[in-house]
Amino acid sequence: MKIGTLLATSLLSISTAVTSISVSANEPIQPIKAATIKNAEMVELGKMLFFDPRLSKSGFISCNSCHNLSMGGTDNIPTSIGHAWQQGPINAPTVLNASMNLAQFWDGRAKDLKEQAGGPIANPGEMASTHKAAVEVLQSIPQYRTYFQHAFGSDQVDIDRVTTAIAAFEETLVTPGSRFDKWLEGDKKALNQQELDGYELFKSSGCSGCHNGPAVGGTLYQKFGIYHPYQTTSKVEGRKAVTGKNTDLNVFKVPTLRNIELTYPYFHDGAAATLEDAVKTMGKLQLDRDFDKKETDSIVAFLKTLTGEQPNFKLPILPPSNNSTPKPAPF
Amino acid sequence: MKIGTLLATSLLSISTAVTSISVSANEPIQPIKAATIKNAEMVELGKMLFFDPRLSKSGFISCNSCHNLSMGGTDNIPTSIGHAWQQGPINAPTVLNASMNLAQFWDGRAKDLKEQAGGPIANPGEMASTHKAAVEVLQSIPQYRTYFQHAFGSDQVDIDRVTTAIAAFEETLVTPGSRFDKWLEGDKKALNQQELDGYELFKSSGCSGCHNGPAVGGTLYQKFGIYHPYQTTSKVEGRKAVTGKNTDLNVFKVPTLRNIELTYPYFHDGAAATLEDAVKTMGKLQLDRDFDKKETDSIVAFLKTLTGEQPNFKLPILPPSNNSTPKPAPF
Repeated sequence: MKIGTLLATSLLSISTAVTSISVSANEPIQPIKAATIKNAEMVELGKMLFFDPRLSKSGFISCNSCHNLSMGGTDNIPTSIGHAWQQGPINAPTVLNASMNLAQFWDGRAKDLKEQAGGPIANPGEMASTHKAAVEVLQSIPQYRTYFQHAFGSDQVDIDRVTTAIAAFEETLVTPGSRFDKWLEGDKKALNQQELDGYELFKSSGCSGCHNGPAVGGTLYQKFGIYHPYQTTSKVEGRKAVTGKNTDLNVFKVPTLRNIELTYPYFHDGAAATLEDAVKTMGKLQLDRDFDKKETDSIVAFLKTLTGEQPNFKLPILPPSNNSTPKPAPF
Repeated sequence: MKIGTLLATSLLSISTAVTSISVSANEPIQPIKAATIKNAEMVELGKMLFFDPRLSKSGFISCNSCHNLSMGGTDNIPTSIGHAWQQGPINAPTVLNASMNLAQFWDGRAKDLKEQAGGPIANPGEMASTHKAAVEVLQSIPQYRTYFQHAFGSDQVDIDRVTTAIAAFEETLVTPGSRFDKWLEGDKKALNQQELDGYELFKSSGCSGCHNGPAVGGTLYQKFGIYHPYQTTSKVEGRKAVTGKNTDLNVFKVPTLRNIELTYPYFHDGAAATLEDAVKTMGKLQLDRDFDKKETDSIVAFLKTLTGEQPNFKLPILPPSNNSTPKPAPF
């Protein structure tokens, strides 16, 4: 009897363990892992740079202006505001979990976060500075040079180091701990029935064919408008702008769906204001499927379980400019 | 002998104590005291509102855009950038220690922080929203209503509560612990000789006639250009815009000099790029005195000892909009 109880308990343990593992192993989505920080001083420097508007011509726009870490790493407007209030061509992708993307920008034109970070600084429609000007600002500030010393071993400031540090910070911007991840990890009460129904439909209807992996996206390029063309006034060509191939017209990097509740509005043109709109459009264009209200609502309910722990750090205090620091030119 | 020693020790203690107290008591500047938080949930709500760009028409500009708490509570540009990149008429005053001002704005047109907070939200040249629109956004977000419930005892959202909460947060933005305050409090090694010389000159030449109290300013209005007129292209009239009196032309609230190293550029038109420029101009115009380089440098050295502990809190995470939240209109 005693042995029997022990055996039963052991079997129960094994059974639970197997179930717990198998849930993750058989699912197209894997849990987000917490960031491992290799060089804390590099991350702190990158955080300051991410928040420093002096990397822009105006002294007003920082990385955080359009990838606002208070708001899901986005600006929550259809397309971004750049220098002198220029209207950007595209919806700002979230920086959260961006390290998991196969490449950066909607069209994948930057191979990694480091390469991406240099783009907006020198883009006349975004931060409108130059790499040279941004480096001159930082170089003029002794405290920044000390931070570069700590992060890199010497106080040299160059754009390679600036973007390396920003990327190191951005690599920490992962969002583990979502309810969906808790469910994946074996907490069966983490999702309710509607959310589970939504997840089943997300898989059975084919959404997970593109939106998969830990970031629920970011792992491949796909044409937007497989069954039906996407109607938009946007002039953006997608991957064609990178490869020059006509077959890459309207092909985009599949965006992550992590924290999608926070990263409205949706699509590269920001034209879908709500998750319901986005799900219906994606169903029709990509899967030739008309999700009814119940189906749409269940997928949306599932998507909202993908919201993870948001960035958790102190607002960085930036070292001041001094008499030798080049001045911003806001107007 | 033993009694003598005791007596000497006692006298020494008394003497030290008296000196320590008298330093503060006889000085025109008093140390900044740490903030006392009465309603922590109100302060947290106010912090979120301070960082929330949805209080603006564009969804892009928050209180923190121009009163950037990473940068001394200012934007560090001569005059601020408003909705659609409009050039503001005046230099953004720091929000740090602003609770100590006798009134708010350069011309004192708002009697306190609460009244001030409502201004930029509805100013077409700044955040360009309306109080009604801002309240509608917040009201539509259940999490915000819960925060209002916790802060105010009911979940009603109105502009009075919005500005009350922002003001409560701003009241916590004090900066104790500067080297100058340590010196005031008896740490005689906190300042070096040049800084002490600068402080003596600051007092003997008359700067402290206006720049006094804990905030080293903010306690009175004064004409800018007492001995010589201030040359500027700025159209701002100062206190005259509030009182209508010609005698109030070019009369401004004396700004705080706390954290002045961080709040460049200087003056209501932001025309003085450096502290040296500002000190020389103030000496000439307000005191009819030509500070030489050594004098200027010593005053600047003293002023840099007024930098206190900067805001120390976690970046707030904002609750997301939902399908019923009014959309921003950035373009």
